[in-house]
Amino acid sequence: MTNEKMVTAITSMEDDFAKWYTDIVKKADLIDYSSVRGCMILRPYGYAIWELIQKQLDERFKATGHENVYMPMFIPESLLQKEKDHVEGFAPEVAWVTHGGDEKLSERLCVRPTSETLFCEHYANIVQSYRDLPKLYNQWCSVVRWEKTTRPFLRSLEFLWQEGHTVHATAEEAEKETIQQLNEYADFCEKVLAMPVIKGQKTDKEKFAGAHSTYTIESLMHDGKALQSGTSHNFGDGFAKAFGIQYTDKNNKLQYVHETSWGVSTRLIGGLIMVHSDNDGLVLPPKVAPIQAIIIPIMQHKEGVLDKAEEIKNELSKICRVRIDSSDKSPGWKYSEYEMKGVPIRIEIGPRDIEKNQAVLVRRDTREKITANLSNITEEISNLLCKIQRELLEKALKHRKSKTSKANNMTEFKEILETNQGFIKAMWCGSEECENAVKEETGATARCVPFEQEHIGDTCVCCQKPAKKMVIWGKAY
Amino acid sequence: MTNEKMVTAITSMEDDFAKWYTDIVKKADLIDYSSVRGCMILRPYGYAIWELIQKQLDERFKATGHENVYMPMFIPESLLQKEKDHVEGFAPEVAWVTHGGDEKLSERLCVRPTSETLFCEHYANIVQSYRDLPKLYNQWCSVVRWEKTTRPFLRSLEFLWQEGHTVHATAEEAEKETIQQLNEYADFCEKVLAMPVIKGQKTDKEKFAGAHSTYTIESLMHDGKALQSGTSHNFGDGFAKAFGIQYTDKNNKLQYVHETSWGVSTRLIGGLIMVHSDNDGLVLPPKVAPIQAIIIPIMQHKEGVLDKAEEIKNELSKICRVRIDSSDKSPGWKYSEYEMKGVPIRIEIGPRDIEKNQAVLVRRDTREKITANLSNITEEISNLLCKIQRELLEKALKHRKSKTSKANNMTEFKEILETNQGFIKAMWCGSEECENAVKEETGATARCVPFEQEHIGDTCVCCQKPAKKMVIWGKAY
Repeated sequence: MTNEKMVTAITSMEDDFAKWYTDIVKKADLIDYSSVRGCMILRPYGYAIWELIQKQLDERFKATGHENVYMPMFIPESLLQKEKDHVEGFAPEVAWVTHGGDEKLSERLCVRPTSETLFCEHYANIVQSYRDLPKLYNQWCSVVRWEKTTRPFLRSLEFLWQEGHTVHATAEEAEKETIQQLNEYADFCEKVLAMPVIKGQKTDKEKFAGAHSTYTIESLMHDGKALQSGTSHNFGDGFAKAFGIQYTDKNNKLQYVHETSWGVSTRLIGGLIMVHSDNDGLVLPPKVAPIQAIIIPIMQHKEGVLDKAEEIKNELSKICRVRIDSSDKSPGWKYSEYEMKGVPIRIEIGPRDIEKNQAVLVRRDTREKITANLSNITEEISNLLCKIQRELLEKALKHRKSKTSKANNMTEFKEILETNQGFIKAMWCGSEECENAVKEETGATARCVPFEQEHIGDTCVCCQKPAKKMVIWGKAY
Repeated sequence: MTNEKMVTAITSMEDDFAKWYTDIVKKADLIDYSSVRGCMILRPYGYAIWELIQKQLDERFKATGHENVYMPMFIPESLLQKEKDHVEGFAPEVAWVTHGGDEKLSERLCVRPTSETLFCEHYANIVQSYRDLPKLYNQWCSVVRWEKTTRPFLRSLEFLWQEGHTVHATAEEAEKETIQQLNEYADFCEKVLAMPVIKGQKTDKEKFAGAHSTYTIESLMHDGKALQSGTSHNFGDGFAKAFGIQYTDKNNKLQYVHETSWGVSTRLIGGLIMVHSDNDGLVLPPKVAPIQAIIIPIMQHKEGVLDKAEEIKNELSKICRVRIDSSDKSPGWKYSEYEMKGVPIRIEIGPRDIEKNQAVLVRRDTREKITANLSNITEEISNLLCKIQRELLEKALKHRKSKTSKANNMTEFKEILETNQGFIKAMWCGSEECENAVKEETGATARCVPFEQEHIGDTCVCCQKPAKKMVIWGKAY
């Protein structure tokens, strides 16, 4: 049975990476466009991936004491303006509601681009004493940012995300929470999405509007571009002062709370695609694959084939998300279809296999074919899913390593971008001038000051004055 | 240990039902108000109830083949206008986005009040052949309706809900789906929310804007008012024609699809409150109680008390959602607190109980005290939770029965509303004139034409001409 490729082929990533990406999101049935500019429809297969991400993240948040809430989607203009840096950062990109029915509103409402201001107002209402602290809230919702240019999952007018917002008695506790949640994200990306990330701090120029410090996880895509995959912010007491969030401490003295926020979004799905997929379509790590194994019956009209396929499905459904495709399409068509959709394991079962009490397993990621004995198919599949999950991470780590370079000066920096675009480690003096100069000359930005610092030289890659930190630079989505 | 009532008492429902209701939603920590008119904040305890509702409904939807998707929250004005009745019904109560950042939009966008138009546009894109049918989609999201007067859970500017939207090849299949989902809602309300409902069809006057027929589940509150708790609509091919959703059938002929939609919302939480709660606060059926059993240690400073409480908690956490409150508040304060929050079972454990290898269980709904042997506490709690769940439904059914009357003429009709407001069964000639007259004279509306028809007379309650159907009337939220 040959692989008929009846599913329309997609653009190869070497020919046109951007086109390859949009081909995959469309042809793997992840999204569809709508008549609303820059807003995408998450189709069942795409949404199922988000549900798996959401479920596993939500369990992690709850395990560390976080509680879910739901805040209004509208923010009155006056409330948005309460924290100066925050409104400056967000006002240019919000959608404004000006009318309710036929009536003009006395005050405009923006559709939330993020909900710091609403959480602050609420915390000011409900926090009185040290006994009320900490409050560890999270919300799952959609937010809107009025972007000029959009790309599915990576940058859209509306997107789904979670935003955690916490308040604490002390600066130390807030910092601890900020780092804890960043570590949670990093662990989730590696263990669940098989997507390695670099943890670090954003420079002042790149930090969140209103934050004291912003931490980030940065991942590297196939094309050598960086993707900011999640952020965690420590607000210090800036918002608390703007919104008057105070508590009486054990000595009966009024104190300001310390606040954090952190979020990841459907952008993670964009990351997944650009880290694992190939020219035949999507490749999904088993832990977020809506279908982990697809059974394709061969010569299914022959007696016993469909029965055996059903039997295997029932057995496997105890340990994984498995389906059987017994439609009247040809096996070759089905092979291409589920390759496009990134199903980790294909199980082929035909009359000759049944005779030999076996099935043929085909890995989506490596195309390796494995003949498996039906007597212990459950164990085989279970082990193979673990193996695929692990090897996808290894492969991504290897890719990142091959695309990570060191630069001592701007000549080297530019050469790397031309020959092997990826992460560039280079020393930095700490001035925003040099940060701007690098961006202007190369298009690369400071992705982060990584927690794991290396000493790769004494002088700034840009000005050659004494260096303070090592920065990871890269062109970014 | 006396019940100290240190938690502020609430207004009694006999004194002021509306105030009793809002006292409960606030004091049981279900919601908080925000500075956005008519929008509520779902606090952790309130949101946890919604999560339990959502999880159990979602499992039911998926078990019958429905898939989740996510549609944009904005609808361009021209898209909303495509189906005439639909836009007339919704345009007066939508929020309009007119600006993105500083720019005025060339076309206004409304924030979705419901998503029929977006689903139609999408279905027109993805449905071509009979092989593509049916499509059984659902989405969990928030919607906005610009209401003048609002009440938490019952009527708010923004609320959370699910909206199912399906397309089918034939009118019969669409009707079957519409009824199937209504039955699913009714079963869910009775089995999970312990809230009995009456299933029926809406009159033409009361049906959904753009629907061919609307079915409803109606429940009865403590105060004798009705709550429309969920609806399921059959659109026939009306939307399909407006949006051009066609497929080629097996004979290669173009046909219009038949469409349905159905939804329930956070309004169900309002229903829960007004069906089960009392003058000490919330009463929750175990299946949607975020905490099903609360352990209150008595004289917790005495050696062994907290250890034993922990031991019981660990045992019980295998079968239910259990917590222990070992804060430094008095047991009496804790009793009132968890009564206010409607926790189904309180478990009191002190030194004397431990000596006797027992604990005292107190039911929230009946206040019944039960001495339970610690050796089989798991079984005791498990059985008691089932019993409470069952008896809450029985009690609600009994209440509904006592508040359901029959009227043969308008004099009787009005007398019932004054003496025993509730559901009124009365015959109807089928004319909108009589329907309007009843509403004008009494304030009661036709809740539904119930599936279970009774013959309680030959003539219309209003005009005394020959009657066609029995209608359930009532004043409604």
